Amino acid sequence: MGGDYAPGVVVEGTATALCDFPDCEIVLVGHEAKLRFYIEKYGLTGHPRLRVVHAPEVVEMRELSSTSLRTKKHSSITECARLLKSGEVDGMVTPGHTGATVAATKVLVRTLPGVDRPALAASMPAERGRFIMVDAGANTDCSPLHLLQFALMGEVYARYLYRLSEPRIGLLSVGGEDVKGNALTKQVFPLMNEKFSNFVGNVEADTIFEGIADVLVADGYTGNVFLKGCEGLARSTIYWLKEVLLKNPWRKTTASMLGNAFRELKSKGSAEDIGGAPLLGINGICIIGHGSSTSRAVRNAIRVCAECIEFDLNGRILQRLKETGCLASDLTEEFRKRPQK
Amino acid sequence: MGGDYAPGVVVEGTATALCDFPDCEIVLVGHEAKLRFYIEKYGLTGHPRLRVVHAPEVVEMRELSSTSLRTKKHSSITECARLLKSGEVDGMVTPGHTGATVAATKVLVRTLPGVDRPALAASMPAERGRFIMVDAGANTDCSPLHLLQFALMGEVYARYLYRLSEPRIGLLSVGGEDVKGNALTKQVFPLMNEKFSNFVGNVEADTIFEGIADVLVADGYTGNVFLKGCEGLARSTIYWLKEVLLKNPWRKTTASMLGNAFRELKSKGSAEDIGGAPLLGINGICIIGHGSSTSRAVRNAIRVCAECIEFDLNGRILQRLKETGCLASDLTEEFRKRPQK
Repeated sequence: MGGDYAPGVVVEGTATALCDFPDCEIVLVGHEAKLRFYIEKYGLTGHPRLRVVHAPEVVEMRELSSTSLRTKKHSSITECARLLKSGEVDGMVTPGHTGATVAATKVLVRTLPGVDRPALAASMPAERGRFIMVDAGANTDCSPLHLLQFALMGEVYARYLYRLSEPRIGLLSVGGEDVKGNALTKQVFPLMNEKFSNFVGNVEADTIFEGIADVLVADGYTGNVFLKGCEGLARSTIYWLKEVLLKNPWRKTTASMLGNAFRELKSKGSAEDIGGAPLLGINGICIIGHGSSTSRAVRNAIRVCAECIEFDLNGRILQRLKETGCLASDLTEEFRKRPQK
Repeated sequence: MGGDYAPGVVVEGTATALCDFPDCEIVLVGHEAKLRFYIEKYGLTGHPRLRVVHAPEVVEMRELSSTSLRTKKHSSITECARLLKSGEVDGMVTPGHTGATVAATKVLVRTLPGVDRPALAASMPAERGRFIMVDAGANTDCSPLHLLQFALMGEVYARYLYRLSEPRIGLLSVGGEDVKGNALTKQVFPLMNEKFSNFVGNVEADTIFEGIADVLVADGYTGNVFLKGCEGLARSTIYWLKEVLLKNPWRKTTASMLGNAFRELKSKGSAEDIGGAPLLGINGICIIGHGSSTSRAVRNAIRVCAECIEFDLNGRILQRLKETGCLASDLTEEFRKRPQK
């Protein structure tokens, strides 16, 4: 029920997913009557691999994530989290309220044993290839332990998403040199250096686009600012591009001949092929789509969700946590609190 | 001597500035022999409003700002700061090492009385108009007091730079709602709300481009990530644009007819007209240019420096600090340290 075009695009995306992924069973969670309308529209009535679970409430985008769990006990997000908790489903997908999803899964599904906080892992385009920004906004205030675990979870996710055997991990900072950063990054730097052989050190926010790391680690406040800043600038660039190209009739006509090129440019920033960002570290797979998700994005978020389950993303995360000594209990107290300097 | 094309572009920009601003006297600080070569080249030998102060050393871009002051006692940046401190000059301009400039001015020139930390104020393009990002990277770890003073100094600078009587101040956050943010922004929010009638509240990193604030306040780590992330994405966008437009000979030919339009697009992101970002809060005017400054950027940084002096930027900052009760001594201890939550 979440996102700008729900539940229409969600049911439409589900229809394509049921067709494309014959091993998937899908449970649609939301207002039953509203869902039935679209289920009929997209010819899914009586589909053997489709089930509906009624959830009468919706968390609106303007609502607070901190209270949504209490005030909307039967929202589609909360019901989804309950299904995930009970094991009735292996994963959940939502283009709805990010904060409410983080809150519901944290409280109901809980984190993987030894993981302190879940983190949102957004895939972003570099000049060639892509990189994963983690945490893209689930935790505004972080400890060194959190950043360390974000790095590890991002690394495992990059192995799946980009098919890399040794994804390079970078720490988002204000300079490329080892000593640059804020109190938090300075404290976690030697720890990351010790734990990960594929740690490339501090990475500046501009050089990341040159493709010098596959996983970029930051606290969720900074990661979110970085992600949203790029989204905003991309939209403004399209606005400016239109402005200069439509300035006079001659330019307009010439530019119209390059329509395909501009569509290709626009697609560089599109996350439709990935469909959503996983909330890593939750004891179950949870993919959060963009609020403006199309049916194609929903279909691909379902694909990513199914593939993460098949890949045993969480099992691999747990294994790596143990191997590298990155479980919460492995670290001393000083790394488990925010820097107090 | 700093910047990618120094000292050539600096002397060239000085030549234009001497011509365009007949009230300005300019002191070139750097390696005398090297400067003399360009002074002759640009026909400035014996110019009545030009003087050279010899500084044999240069802080290289890869050097640490924390040690540059000790290891390079006679760098052009340090000598500049000494001239500013002694009152021999009213302002300084450098396209050199930002960290070294911050360190040298902080130690030698000091901050304005009652100002705790200087902040870098970068002007960035919005869809229409521009906004000031403060702090763009001078302080990686901040207290609520710092953010409050950054806001006030940014406001006074916006009055000069954008000719606005009541610049709107926004707090960079992870959501537009009042309660969103990290521990630092949550603590400073009510304070900013109380002190500034023109406070527009929390601003997300994407909506800022829609022009909803004239001054955007953040700690220097996040501000720097935001600024550099945008710079990097802008460069990548140009890369992608070239990629799609040069894909085949037909597109290449058509695109070449739109050369002016693409040049106009590129100029949106250019900071050449402003030339540099002031280091606000220093007891003297200090403008820091981009490392890749052209002679035009140098000329305009000199213009901005002269105009800030004429505008009495620092006098106005001090007055506003007193008026609003934003002097360091006006605030209680809890706002003068970093949030400990």
